[in-house]
Amino acid sequence: MKISKLEAHLRVKPGDDDFSLSKIDPRDVDFLGSEKDARAQFEEDVQTIDKLQNLLYADGRKALLVILQGTDTSGKDGTIRGVFTAASPLGMTVTAFKKPNELEAAHDFLWRVHNAVPRHGFIALFNRSHYEDVLVAKVRRIAPKDIIEQRYDQINAFEKLLTETRTTVLKFMLHISKKEQGERLQERLDDPTKNWKFHADDLEDRKLWSEFEAAYETALKRCSTDHAPWYVVPADRKWARNAIIAAIVRNTLENMDLNFPKMPWKPSSFTIK
Amino acid sequence: MKISKLEAHLRVKPGDDDFSLSKIDPRDVDFLGSEKDARAQFEEDVQTIDKLQNLLYADGRKALLVILQGTDTSGKDGTIRGVFTAASPLGMTVTAFKKPNELEAAHDFLWRVHNAVPRHGFIALFNRSHYEDVLVAKVRRIAPKDIIEQRYDQINAFEKLLTETRTTVLKFMLHISKKEQGERLQERLDDPTKNWKFHADDLEDRKLWSEFEAAYETALKRCSTDHAPWYVVPADRKWARNAIIAAIVRNTLENMDLNFPKMPWKPSSFTIK
Repeated sequence: MKISKLEAHLRVKPGDDDFSLSKIDPRDVDFLGSEKDARAQFEEDVQTIDKLQNLLYADGRKALLVILQGTDTSGKDGTIRGVFTAASPLGMTVTAFKKPNELEAAHDFLWRVHNAVPRHGFIALFNRSHYEDVLVAKVRRIAPKDIIEQRYDQINAFEKLLTETRTTVLKFMLHISKKEQGERLQERLDDPTKNWKFHADDLEDRKLWSEFEAAYETALKRCSTDHAPWYVVPADRKWARNAIIAAIVRNTLENMDLNFPKMPWKPSSFTIK
Repeated sequence: MKISKLEAHLRVKPGDDDFSLSKIDPRDVDFLGSEKDARAQFEEDVQTIDKLQNLLYADGRKALLVILQGTDTSGKDGTIRGVFTAASPLGMTVTAFKKPNELEAAHDFLWRVHNAVPRHGFIALFNRSHYEDVLVAKVRRIAPKDIIEQRYDQINAFEKLLTETRTTVLKFMLHISKKEQGERLQERLDDPTKNWKFHADDLEDRKLWSEFEAAYETALKRCSTDHAPWYVVPADRKWARNAIIAAIVRNTLENMDLNFPKMPWKPSSFTIK
């Protein structure tokens, strides 16, 4: 599938009232073609992302923000490791947003997020994000309904500011099935080297699966915009998840019109002694 | 050469009054054995660093700070790209210290540095560091002599705090020859895709080569300690530089006694529904 079609296939259409996660199969990989071809394309994309990141850094005028959302075990860490491993840590920041600490909670919900956006020349990766403030905050009733309701527009305005000031925003929802999550959680219990990744809280969230799904649907409907679209990534198969995200990141960088800067001096005017 | 011998070979001995950079050949690679073997070992080390970083992250009790110093074109960026590219950006931060901004300059010189040290579980890479405050600050007389003089002990005390609070500190001085720097600067002029890396200021620093060398010698003598040793890395050959640093970083991580944490619960006490 061509990248433009792939993007259109996975993008949540702004204003699509019929959007429903249940229509998207977390195991669907047919649109990618054969696994072998997709893996080969992925390897090429990862190397190209490395080159484009270098160019983004050299260009220095623009930035890329990649937001990863998804339930526990959906593969946010694995995506960062898989897709961005060839790129240099030099021009990249990663921020994992957890429960706000005291200082963070004493500010508006976008304060800590704004602080972590990429400087020009950089790629910033968000492992969770301000979307938790309309997801877990809604499902667990951490904030009142009318406050949550305000936040969708506040998020859209904030992301508009970023895109209008030369930061491209990509948002990926890693969509896994409840069955797949069960298997991944069980693996964390069975493998002693993965025990540390297991949190009893995750089982509490799992009980609220459909409530989280509904909260995601609303967030994706309300906040997939032309300037900052949401992509739903079928993520039960890790190779497919990585292949999809790498392809979209690569294509996005390629379309950012990045160039090595032209310097205001002539190389011949300098002599190295 | 065994890693323990390699480390001893390159380490600046604490209290060594005879230490001199002129005794160390930036092109010396004989101690590494054949280039082919060193490159193979490097590839293995890079993959092992990735695994150890994951373990450091899981362990969560300790951290590693890697400080890279060296003149322009000495390969600080290239080291970060080369040695740490396989490791996940998830547990790594990179800070490039430039001329202090207004806020930074309004604090003591270690303030911005302290802010950038790794949290437990992380590796932090410093591209330049607080050592600039006894290097460029000394050569360019940005700070008075007696202030510079104080800083060596202040640095030692600061690094002692870090190591006593479970952050291992590694310091690498990338040692290149003036001839090699000349070639690399020329390349930045000749290659249009590298013009953006060229700064006329670098030529001013180049004129002060021997002053910088003297400042480095003092800093390395005064601040190579048992708790935070300095290594001088012959860096004219990029493959040798990367091989040396990867070997020492790997060995350091291996000696940090990292373990997957034992959780206070039994896996069998949970059931995934």
